[in-house]
Amino acid sequence: MRPLLSWGTWREVLSRAWRPRPSVGYLEALNAQGYARNTPVGACELQGELDRFGGISVRLARLDALDRLDAAAFKKSLQVAVQQWRSEGRTAVWLHIPILQSRFIAPAATLGFRFHHAELDSSTLTLWLAEGPSRLPGYASHQVGVAGAVFDESTRKILVVQDRNKLKNMWKFPGGLSEPGEDIGDTAVREVFEETGIKSEFRSLLSIRQQHTNPGAFGKSDMYIICRLKPYSFTINFCQHECLRCEWMDLNDLAKTENTTPITSRVARLLLYGYREGFDKIDLTVEELPAVHTDVAIKISS
Amino acid sequence: MRPLLSWGTWREVLSRAWRPRPSVGYLEALNAQGYARNTPVGACELQGELDRFGGISVRLARLDALDRLDAAAFKKSLQVAVQQWRSEGRTAVWLHIPILQSRFIAPAATLGFRFHHAELDSSTLTLWLAEGPSRLPGYASHQVGVAGAVFDESTRKILVVQDRNKLKNMWKFPGGLSEPGEDIGDTAVREVFEETGIKSEFRSLLSIRQQHTNPGAFGKSDMYIICRLKPYSFTINFCQHECLRCEWMDLNDLAKTENTTPITSRVARLLLYGYREGFDKIDLTVEELPAVHTDVAIKISS
Repeated sequence: MRPLLSWGTWREVLSRAWRPRPSVGYLEALNAQGYARNTPVGACELQGELDRFGGISVRLARLDALDRLDAAAFKKSLQVAVQQWRSEGRTAVWLHIPILQSRFIAPAATLGFRFHHAELDSSTLTLWLAEGPSRLPGYASHQVGVAGAVFDESTRKILVVQDRNKLKNMWKFPGGLSEPGEDIGDTAVREVFEETGIKSEFRSLLSIRQQHTNPGAFGKSDMYIICRLKPYSFTINFCQHECLRCEWMDLNDLAKTENTTPITSRVARLLLYGYREGFDKIDLTVEELPAVHTDVAIKISS
Repeated sequence: MRPLLSWGTWREVLSRAWRPRPSVGYLEALNAQGYARNTPVGACELQGELDRFGGISVRLARLDALDRLDAAAFKKSLQVAVQQWRSEGRTAVWLHIPILQSRFIAPAATLGFRFHHAELDSSTLTLWLAEGPSRLPGYASHQVGVAGAVFDESTRKILVVQDRNKLKNMWKFPGGLSEPGEDIGDTAVREVFEETGIKSEFRSLLSIRQQHTNPGAFGKSDMYIICRLKPYSFTINFCQHECLRCEWMDLNDLAKTENTTPITSRVARLLLYGYREGFDKIDLTVEELPAVHTDVAIKISS
């Protein structure tokens, strides 16, 4: 183990590496809150960026000198910094750690830090400093699955599959998990095509289900959304990896069969009603609305 | 750095520590797939559990002997194991690492492992072994925010707040992020009470919005759901941490004001229509459906 760096060296390393590089929006936020004035330059050795909720963000990727530090030296320095942040009344610490510097995770954990989330090449740990239970926002809590109910009005037939990866083979609508940044309707159209070879257009949302015990969700919740799609190709060419069977089934038969899931059966009955009375009676309309964002930092949730 | 353990010692450690302890359901799955028979005991030094999709799960928490290993020794052993799993045609490796053993993350990363997710006291890394791009399912992709539109039919007034933590103070419905395992309606009722002191009952879902650029979502997507709630207390006692203002506003005024968000304005107009024509015209009905789970292992998504 290398000897611990002297405190003088450490301060020098940090004051060089940790000059905040806030974005313009971020600075506006700081000034709006008067935080910038409240933080004299160099007042904090292990200096991170202050957010408008009084939290400190430390990004190890910006601290090249850390490559020369071992875990013990890092722990000592983090301990000192946390004591100072606490004395300054900071609310929380966010520690962003590149995967190749993960040797610093365990030392942080011994100081009370825990994983907030991790993805691909980096992890984020947090420590709540303010009084009471943590009010930091959680990470993504749901996976979103989308299925496509592809209904051919001219033949009153609906596209159904049996999943190869299930032990019970019940008729259901083709679908799968939404990809990052993908709109719900796009997921439905993509999954239907990948699983069945059928091309379709998004028409509306039909049904939404939330589950908290889905075994494929890594302990997270599952939101399952069924969309109404209109086919514009009809020749089935289904994915052998995913599907055991795939066919166009009469909507009446799907509504009556017991060899299906409750939500598939419910949507089949809903579609029969819409087929008779007009789909405007069952569709959840979708509108494009402009987004309004006034946050410029992580929001502390209630 | 401690000397590398001899391979003989390592094999002994692993064969002692890595005897799979599958659940009954898991065994059924293995037998159904014939995997158990395909995996002679002790055939693999760094032995994990085989899932029904041909993936290997390695849980470091079960390997007490790892506490005596340094990162370099672990890397060597993982490298050998990965080579063997690849030669056996395994599809993927799931590496579950307790936070205090995070010194093993960087070595795994140098072999191609990346974070799949991490939460609190442990992280999970994955390596795709099969051909083509990874078909492993992603982690939770959405945060779910829920707002409560608390409407008092007797006075035609609706409960609105201005958020203290926003730069633009626009009227909106009280709400916040869904907690793990919490139903949407319960989130709306809880958040309304925490922010405003108003007690209410869930009536229906009114509107759902998806965004991919929400700055408070850590790069994930945001699902925002507005519920219709019926109040049964009326005296406002709002949370000073979160709210700047809170009041009962005439629904017409909220529908007309420009000092609000597009979705709040849209829902106000929707509620006015429901108030005149009947809420059954605007409510998305909510049903309890039995869950059907046939998965007993992680599903490989399309």
